[in-house]
Parts: sequence; C-alpha cells; structure tokens
Amino acid sequence: MNYRVIFNTIGKIAIVLALLLVIPTLLAVIHGEGSWWALLTTIGISFVIGMTLVLAVRPKSKAIFSKEGLIIVALSWIYVSAIGALPFVISGAIPNYIDAFFETCSGFSTTGATILTGSQIDSMYITDKALLFWRSFTHWVGGMGVIVFLMAFESGSSNRGMHVLRAEMPGPTVDKIVPRARSTAQILYLLYIGFTVAEIVALLIAGMPVFDSFVHAFGTAGTGGFGVRSDSIAGYNAACQWIIAVFMVLFGINFNLYYLWILGKVKNALKSQELWIFIGVIAVSSAVVSVDLALSNLSFCAEAGDSIRHAVFQVASFISTTGYSSIPAVAGDINVFPLLSKGLLFLLMFIGGCAGSTGGGLKVSRVALLCLAVRKELRRALHPRNANAVKFEGKTVSDETLNGVARYFGLYMLILAGAFIVLCFDAGEGLTLESNITAAVSCVNNIGPAYGVVAGGYYMYNWFSKLVLSFAMLIGRLEIYPIILTFAPSTWIRR
Amino acid sequence: MNYRVIFNTIGKIAIVLALLLVIPTLLAVIHGEGSWWALLTTIGISFVIGMTLVLAVRPKSKAIFSKEGLIIVALSWIYVSAIGALPFVISGAIPNYIDAFFETCSGFSTTGATILTGSQIDSMYITDKALLFWRSFTHWVGGMGVIVFLMAFESGSSNRGMHVLRAEMPGPTVDKIVPRARSTAQILYLLYIGFTVAEIVALLIAGMPVFDSFVHAFGTAGTGGFGVRSDSIAGYNAACQWIIAVFMVLFGINFNLYYLWILGKVKNALKSQELWIFIGVIAVSSAVVSVDLALSNLSFCAEAGDSIRHAVFQVASFISTTGYSSIPAVAGDINVFPLLSKGLLFLLMFIGGCAGSTGGGLKVSRVALLCLAVRKELRRALHPRNANAVKFEGKTVSDETLNGVARYFGLYMLILAGAFIVLCFDAGEGLTLESNITAAVSCVNNIGPAYGVVAGGYYMYNWFSKLVLSFAMLIGRLEIYPIILTFAPSTWIRR
Repeated sequence: MNYRVIFNTIGKIAIVLALLLVIPTLLAVIHGEGSWWALLTTIGISFVIGMTLVLAVRPKSKAIFSKEGLIIVALSWIYVSAIGALPFVISGAIPNYIDAFFETCSGFSTTGATILTGSQIDSMYITDKALLFWRSFTHWVGGMGVIVFLMAFESGSSNRGMHVLRAEMPGPTVDKIVPRARSTAQILYLLYIGFTVAEIVALLIAGMPVFDSFVHAFGTAGTGGFGVRSDSIAGYNAACQWIIAVFMVLFGINFNLYYLWILGKVKNALKSQELWIFIGVIAVSSAVVSVDLALSNLSFCAEAGDSIRHAVFQVASFISTTGYSSIPAVAGDINVFPLLSKGLLFLLMFIGGCAGSTGGGLKVSRVALLCLAVRKELRRALHPRNANAVKFEGKTVSDETLNGVARYFGLYMLILAGAFIVLCFDAGEGLTLESNITAAVSCVNNIGPAYGVVAGGYYMYNWFSKLVLSFAMLIGRLEIYPIILTFAPSTWIRR
Repeated sequence: MNYRVIFNTIGKIAIVLALLLVIPTLLAVIHGEGSWWALLTTIGISFVIGMTLVLAVRPKSKAIFSKEGLIIVALSWIYVSAIGALPFVISGAIPNYIDAFFETCSGFSTTGATILTGSQIDSMYITDKALLFWRSFTHWVGGMGVIVFLMAFESGSSNRGMHVLRAEMPGPTVDKIVPRARSTAQILYLLYIGFTVAEIVALLIAGMPVFDSFVHAFGTAGTGGFGVRSDSIAGYNAACQWIIAVFMVLFGINFNLYYLWILGKVKNALKSQELWIFIGVIAVSSAVVSVDLALSNLSFCAEAGDSIRHAVFQVASFISTTGYSSIPAVAGDINVFPLLSKGLLFLLMFIGGCAGSTGGGLKVSRVALLCLAVRKELRRALHPRNANAVKFEGKTVSDETLNGVARYFGLYMLILAGAFIVLCFDAGEGLTLESNITAAVSCVNNIGPAYGVVAGGYYMYNWFSKLVLSFAMLIGRLEIYPIILTFAPSTWIRR
C-alpha cells in the first residue's frame, strides 16, 4: 500500500476544502453575519492539516493502483464531511457535532436529508445566509466530485489517473471522454459550470431572488435537494418550479452526451439507450402521477395544470435523486400524495439518474443491465444450449459486466437491509416501518426526503442512527466499494 | 416441444386431485355437512378431465427436457389451484371464483394468505369443517409438491426424472438423495408423513382437539399457515404453541438431513452450514424479539416466559414462512408488535427456510451464497488478480452458481417490485405503503400475513390485485422460472 500518496492527496483535498470555504466566508463578511469567524476558523484548521500532510508526507512513488484509488476517494469524502461540518458546530447553528456531520455528509453526498426543522431553516434564511450557502455549495462540489475537482484544477501532470476518477464517478462503467483523466475532469467541470450558470440565469429571469437562485442551482446541479425555506420549492412561482424540474432532469443525464452534443455529434448522443429509458420512465411516471393527483381532490391540484406540474416536479425530483418538493405548506409533505403516486415515487428512488450524471440511485443503465441479465437467465432456462449475446448501447455486454451488476445489486440490497434494521432499533417518536424503509432507501440512494414522520426531516433519529445514515449516504454516493473496503480489516492487514 | 407428455401428465395430476378430494368428501358425509356434493361434483369434474387427457393424449415419446419439466410443473400447479377452488365456489362458502382461486393458490403454494374474515373462519369451523380440512390439506400436498406426490405413488417406471423434481423442489440446487428420482420422491414423502404424524400426536397429547390437530399439522408441515380460528394459534395453550413453534422450525430444515440422520450419518447431517445458519438466525432473532417484547409493556407479555414464547413462535413462523400467529385476540394482530420486532420479522420473510425444506422465501443457502458472492466481489475490488475460491457446505462453489444466485435475486426483486406497484393501483380501504410492501413480500415468499390493514386478511384488495397475488404466490413457491417461462411467448412460438 502506498500510504504516502494517500495522505499526500488527502492533504491536497484539505487545502481545496479551505479554498472552497473562502466563498461563504466572504458572503458572511459582506452580509455582516456572525458565522464568518466559524468559517474562518475552519479554513485555518483545514489549511494547517492540508499543508502539514502535503509537506510532511511526500510520496516516494506516484503509483496508484485500484486499492489506493478506492481508499483515497473514501478518506477524502470522509475528511471533507468531517471538517466541512465544523462551521455549523463552531457558529452554534448546529451545536451537536453528529448532527452537523450528518448535514455535511448529506450535502457532499448530494442527498439533501436534513436534521434541521422547518423553522430552523426559516430563521437561518434571515440570520445565517452564509451557512445556508455553504450547506448548498457542498451539493455542488459533491455532485461532480471532490477529487474530480482537484484533478481538474491541480497544476502539474495528473498522476492519479482513471483509477481515482472511476472510483468517484457514478455508474457501472466510466468512459473516458478524452484519453487523459485530467482533461476529462476539466471538460466535465466546464459543462457543469455552464449548466449551473444557465439555471441561475433562468431562475433570476423567472423572478427568484439572487441568493435563492444560486443555492437552488447548486442543489439542482448536484441533484442534492437542500433548500433555504421550510417548504422547499413550493413557495416559488410556477415558472421557477418548471425551471427546476427541467434542470433536475438535465442534471440526471450522462454528461458525456452533452460533450458529444457540443462536438456536433448530436446523432451519437441521441442514440443512447440509457437516455431514452430515463426519459421514457419520467414520461410514463409523470402521466400516471398526474392522473392520480388529478383524481385525488388535493387542494393544491385544483386545476389540471397544477396536477401536471406537481407530478413532473416530484417525478423529476425523485428519479434524479434531488429531493426538492413543490408541495405547498398548507398540504404539508409528500404524505398527502395518494398511495399510487407514493408507491411509484418509491420505486423511482431505486432507479436514480443516468451513469455519468450527478444523480444517485442504482443508475438507469445498471437497472437496464440487471433486467437484461435477468432476461438472459430466463432464456437460458428455456434453451440451455442457446445463449444469445446481450446488447446494450450498441455493444455486446460481457457476462462479466452482467454478473458484476447482479452482484452489485445484491450488495446494495444487503446494505439497505442493514441500514433499515439499525433504524428499527431507534425509539424515535413517530417512526414506523414505512418511515424507516423509506429513510434507508432515501439515504442510500441520495434522495433526501422520506415518507411518514421523516418527510419533514431526520431530527427524530438518535445519534447512532444519524451516524449510520451519514455513512449510508457516502456509501450510496461513492457506489459502495470505496467506503466498505476502507473499513474492511483485510484492506489494511498484510497477509 | 413434447405437448403430448405435458397434457398427459396434467391428466394424471387431475386424477390425483380427484383422489385427494375424496378425504374431505368423506369427512363432509360423516359430519353431515352440506358441502359434500360440492366436493363430489369437483371430484367428478377433475376425474373426467383427467381420464380424458390420459386416454386421449398418449405421449409418443416419453422424453422430457428442462423446458417441458418447467411447463408441466407450472400448468399442474395452476390446474390444481383452479379446479381445487371449485368446492368453495359450488358450496357457496366463497361465492366469488377469484376469491376461491386466491385461497386455493394460497393453500397449495403454502402461503396461508386468506381472503376470509375472522368471523367467516369462525363460522366455517362450526358448519363447514370439511372445507376447512380441504383448505389446510392443500398446504400439506403443496408443501412437498404435487408432482413429487405423483412421482412417489405412480406405479410403473418413473420417466419424468430429475428435471421435474428439480423444477418443483425449492432451493438453488437439488441433491438426489438416491440415484432414482422416484425413490427420492418416496423417501421424501415417507419422512414428510412421519413428521406430520408426530406433530398430530404431540398436539393431541397437549390437548388440542382432533380436527384442529390434523389441520394445524398440515399447515405446519407445508409451512402454510391456514388456521381454523379467527385468532390463529393464539387460542390454544402454551404447550400447543411451543409444539407448533418447534415443528415450524423442523419443517424449515432440509429433508436430506433427516434422511442422513436416519441412515445413521448424524455427523454428516450436523456438518450442514445451512442448518447452523438457520438455527443461528432463529436464536439471535428470538433473543432480540424477546427482549423487545419484554420491554414494550404488551398485555400478553406480562411474564418473561410469555415474551420468549411469542418471540420464538413469531420468529419460527416468519422465517419458516408458515405465518401462524400466537398473538391473542385482545391484542389483535402483528401490528401491536414494537417496531424493532416488526422490522426484524420483515427481514426474516426474505430469508425463508432451508433448501429442500417445505419453507418458502429466498432460502437460507441462497442468502448465504448471495453474501459469499458479494464478499468475493468486494475482495476482487481490492485484489483484482487474487481470486479466492468460495466454499460452502464443504465444496467449492463455482462462479456459475454464485452468478446464478445473484441473477435469481435480481429477478426476485423485480417481481416483488412489480407485485408491489400493482397493489398500489388498488384503492382498497386502509391500504398503505407498508401494507402493500409487506403484502407483496409476504405473498412472493409464501408467508401469508402482512402488516397494516392486511394483517387480518386480504379481503380489501380488488379482484385484479388478488389475481396478481395468486400468481405471485405460485411464482414464489415454484421459484419463479416455471410460471414466468410458461407465460413467455417465446416458450410457445417456434422461431
């Protein structure tokens, strides 16, 4: 194991975190908010840790193998969550460290699950804009990836390569857009910035305040879901809701397709099966939920247009794993939705966005490959000697890939079951089987809100449940392997 | 496709069904119950169908391949459920045919889910014992298998062989106990009869009435769960409950182990890893549920002994997929259990019994192999070049088996998701996400009761949901492939 390169990289990540914290600090100073010193203190801490590691631990060899790549990614994400939580604790906005860690894991993992109550959020919107900005900014950074960020902007030759990029990027396989990992990272971040700016501009034109436009664009871009109001997006006008719905879908699409589109290879981009499955599922689900809402006599769906808007918004929010809500405060939360809509949205939680997008969940292509693996297995039972090749995205899919997806799915379900049963040990008020199942599914898939009492936030869980859910969110964002393997004894013990 | 051998075998199954119906018919005559003519009419119908098929469709070739084996099993089970439902309809006990079909599928598949209300069961116990006997007798026949029954008792050489036996017997792999399929079937049925008689005797000694002892022994042996009282097993004394709990565990164990035990190879039998995992899960779960119940101030757990009895009973009932309940009528149903117990029992629903037992669910060995597959995948991520062999039950497990289990699990979850979303289209009163999730899980895994409003029965679902759940139960009992492939167009269309 190349320990030196691991800790050296964590050091660089620590410096990146310090730099990222400069933006909310400036905001706090400009707004005259008291949190500036909490932010500045955290900058100091992370900068000292970072410089110490970078200067003291110089790697002898720059070689990184798959193992080191996984560990670097896991430790980097745990580091930014652990230290990124400090401003909330030091400022007193979230005095309990576990709560702040949960909130920051939720931010970087782009989950958007919160331990804040609605009234706490509403009061922070008045007095603590800088901290709310930081909370949403973690979504933006986490969406494309902390290490992808480092790779894109670090000067000097990239020596970390695709191992690390692969470990951090979502989806069953990561295509290199261009041969060099660093150039891939740069292209991805440029596209990401471009789309984020486009959403900010659109929201400003639709009449959303400047601060709100920025944080919601961050929340959408990372498919995170942290808002700045107790009723999420419900308080903004219909135009703002439509814009966010469209961008939630856009950020759920593989970024490689946008790159192809920019290169003028529009036809190639439109050939993507994953894209059409994603859009098809959204279209069908939106139609079903629209009709279901229209038939349910809900106060906020008086007109057909309302039903369609809320349906498209919630479907886009759940399948992209963002977790924003357009349900008005008078109605409360997702629990007022009729059963069919709730059931359908629950299943969408599992699917998630496309591979190579900022969305969480299993990913559309992984679900598609799982279905293909299952179909192949069924065919084999019928015609044992006649094994047809499986094709996806125009290529023959190897048995190894299909089996890898099936095994990943098994691992994923075991983790869900584990997170669920831990939550059942919690005696928090109002918790039910429904709330615990959906909370586990929501955190592992990086959505955020859940059903039942958890629709309003995760504050009723005890510290142990919160800690487990924090790691569940990181496990989900990094697609299981990095976090699990980093905590496996066999990773560290030499045989 | 060898159509002739398929329909010829269905004909034999039809005659078997007619013969099986003789027992409840005699009971009805002895008790002077009006249902005797409904039973007799059904005997006539099935006998005519059977003789017609057997005499008219003589197979030219006796060759059976894997495809024919799957179809024979699927059609046989659909036949016995469809015709076995007639006595309920003709007698007027369950006037709606879909309801009766659901009840009979639930019987043969050893699920034990009922559309009868508690008061209907209580009144049938007084006036319709013969029909209640038939209802429970389907559990007993379904537990070991309809075709295994035919194979065991059919005279002449067995030409169907292991293909059919494999398709009907649960578990990832079926060991031949002895080289000839027919002898295997006979040994299995002899063991099965022996254990059933032992349970009847034990229950009689413990003070249970004769009729009740028979039906509950049938329900336990098939790990079905149909009772004859509205409060299931709660109304019987503690000794009866303990006896049933022990036998639920015994019928959840691989019957091959009993055969080894009879042969004197006790050491070999005790080497089974699956056995010890099964017992370990039961022990740990019982301990957790006992403490949880004891701490929850439930009226029926006043003493520590009560908590332990109810805990062991419910754990045995859920993991063996029987579905009996020991919760007293004053408390109502499983919904009164504390959250942790409910959550843990929910997870046990997925595990189920051992391979080669009458229990449903995924089967202990399949869950164990899934965990081993996942562990191997994790190790491969760490050490790509160093692939350790996976061992289970003292043998090296091939990658093919591991991948097969992982794919089976994917298929299984897709079927669960499909059944769940169909139930969400149902506007039945009181249905929630919890009731629909647990109902789908309960039916596919052949348990019976679910949570929420479905704890008391499935009568609030509409006809379409009941039909889907009926097939879900058969799919679960036959381990997916036979039913799915029989309804796949590609099975029937020649290319």
